Amino acid sequence: MSKEWIAVDWGTTHLRVWRMAGREIMAKAASDKGMNTLAADGFEPALLELVEPWLTETPTRVLCCGMVGSRQGWIEAPYRPVPCAPLAETLVRAPTRDPRLDVRIVPGLSQSSPPDVMRGEETQIAGFLALKDGWDGVICLPGTHTKWVHLSAGEVVSFQTFMTGELFALLAGQSVLRHSVDTSGWDAAAFAEAASEAMSRPEALAARLFRLRAAHLLEGPQPARACAELSGLLIGAELAAARPYWLGQNIAVIGADAVARAYVEALSLQGNSATFAKSDAMTQAGLVKASRDTE
Amino acid sequence: MSKEWIAVDWGTTHLRVWRMAGREIMAKAASDKGMNTLAADGFEPALLELVEPWLTETPTRVLCCGMVGSRQGWIEAPYRPVPCAPLAETLVRAPTRDPRLDVRIVPGLSQSSPPDVMRGEETQIAGFLALKDGWDGVICLPGTHTKWVHLSAGEVVSFQTFMTGELFALLAGQSVLRHSVDTSGWDAAAFAEAASEAMSRPEALAARLFRLRAAHLLEGPQPARACAELSGLLIGAELAAARPYWLGQNIAVIGADAVARAYVEALSLQGNSATFAKSDAMTQAGLVKASRDTE
Repeated sequence: MSKEWIAVDWGTTHLRVWRMAGREIMAKAASDKGMNTLAADGFEPALLELVEPWLTETPTRVLCCGMVGSRQGWIEAPYRPVPCAPLAETLVRAPTRDPRLDVRIVPGLSQSSPPDVMRGEETQIAGFLALKDGWDGVICLPGTHTKWVHLSAGEVVSFQTFMTGELFALLAGQSVLRHSVDTSGWDAAAFAEAASEAMSRPEALAARLFRLRAAHLLEGPQPARACAELSGLLIGAELAAARPYWLGQNIAVIGADAVARAYVEALSLQGNSATFAKSDAMTQAGLVKASRDTE
Repeated sequence: MSKEWIAVDWGTTHLRVWRMAGREIMAKAASDKGMNTLAADGFEPALLELVEPWLTETPTRVLCCGMVGSRQGWIEAPYRPVPCAPLAETLVRAPTRDPRLDVRIVPGLSQSSPPDVMRGEETQIAGFLALKDGWDGVICLPGTHTKWVHLSAGEVVSFQTFMTGELFALLAGQSVLRHSVDTSGWDAAAFAEAASEAMSRPEALAARLFRLRAAHLLEGPQPARACAELSGLLIGAELAAARPYWLGQNIAVIGADAVARAYVEALSLQGNSATFAKSDAMTQAGLVKASRDTE
């Protein structure tokens, strides 16, 4: 029987746990106790709420990735400077009161020039590489803060973060555009057109955004179209800026289904075919890799 | 004695009134009862709260500009399509119960291609032209939704809106950058550098924004510098996109003090000298013009 352990994806707004036997998932659970809802002494209770039934008298290994390792997290797992392999050889131990827990946190990565940081994505990258041995190229990880990562010979060489996801959420949910955009809608043609337009004139973004509002006032509401256009404009502008990353490269996109597919679609409009991998599966694969490397 | 009337600047979040005798300001008052706090039947009471002491038995003319004339305002004053003079020859009468009030609203302007709208800025433009007879060129009106307006022979020929001010407020107040930016601080050199950088590489905006956060995490907080950089990046990207408007033109900037000066400074870095005029004074001058034109 494979050894049991627990895999944990602990981000800013979510906590997801998997009961593992070797590389097999035996059970899973989740809560909304993300890092930004917890003080330093709140992490152990939040974890126990989900995993207590899985614990035994001998300490269980718990491997965590994500914002749980930030300065505002359980304990700071200092950034490792690139270039380096995505996973550290030693993880950072978190203080616990419960003797049944042996908690370790995967450190994030940093880059000094230009300054940049990641936490959580390094584990997804490690998972992807574990499944695609010898893969070289560029990985795009769309999310609140989208990362573009250049990989070579199993190492992260450089990376760049774009605030595209957060801009979309703020604009669609809190700006004047909220009246004109329905995020449950989609219009694939409008997305493609807006993405192409933003790629050729990325600097026009702030003006093009207001046009969504003006078109609503003058021509009537088209909330699904406006949502796809907003997404296309932001992703198109990002792709224009990230061109030095992806041009002529082997590309993979790791993310949640809908947003990752939008990136794959926008890249294909530029004649690039990208491999798609789901972020949840890559996180699990990365934590499996961390578990084997640090046994 | 000049005839008494009341000038009203009624925007989304504010209500400002001036008791006027001809072009002289006799008194002023203000409240926070902007358009977005009021239902249709709330406008008359909100106005009376401020101006009741100034009313007489004979109806007093009240001239209003701004979002009060939008579909969600007191009564819709339909947009006038450009090209046209900034002020209409006839204003839109708002329904009132109090016989002492004779309320008229200045209509906004619209443009069909590309779709765009303004409300309130047309009055500031009219005020500026009234003070600078025969002025031709381009007016920039920074604000939540900054306008660039091309004027010729006393008419608004075309205009374009940028969501720069709203982006700044969302990013500085609600995004992950809020931890790194202090909007009470300023650093003129950082502003200039960021504005120049964004003008030469406007497409890099979403990446350059996250660098403010990463620099904070890796190099320590510099909240005043980060505020000036954020402003410089957004204004620089806007200037890059608005270049067809201002290049080689006579330029005026109408706005509140600090933000308008930032635009003037950014334009001067590009070798352009712009005339600065305060938005409050231009609104008053525009309403004086409307009062004389429609007597």
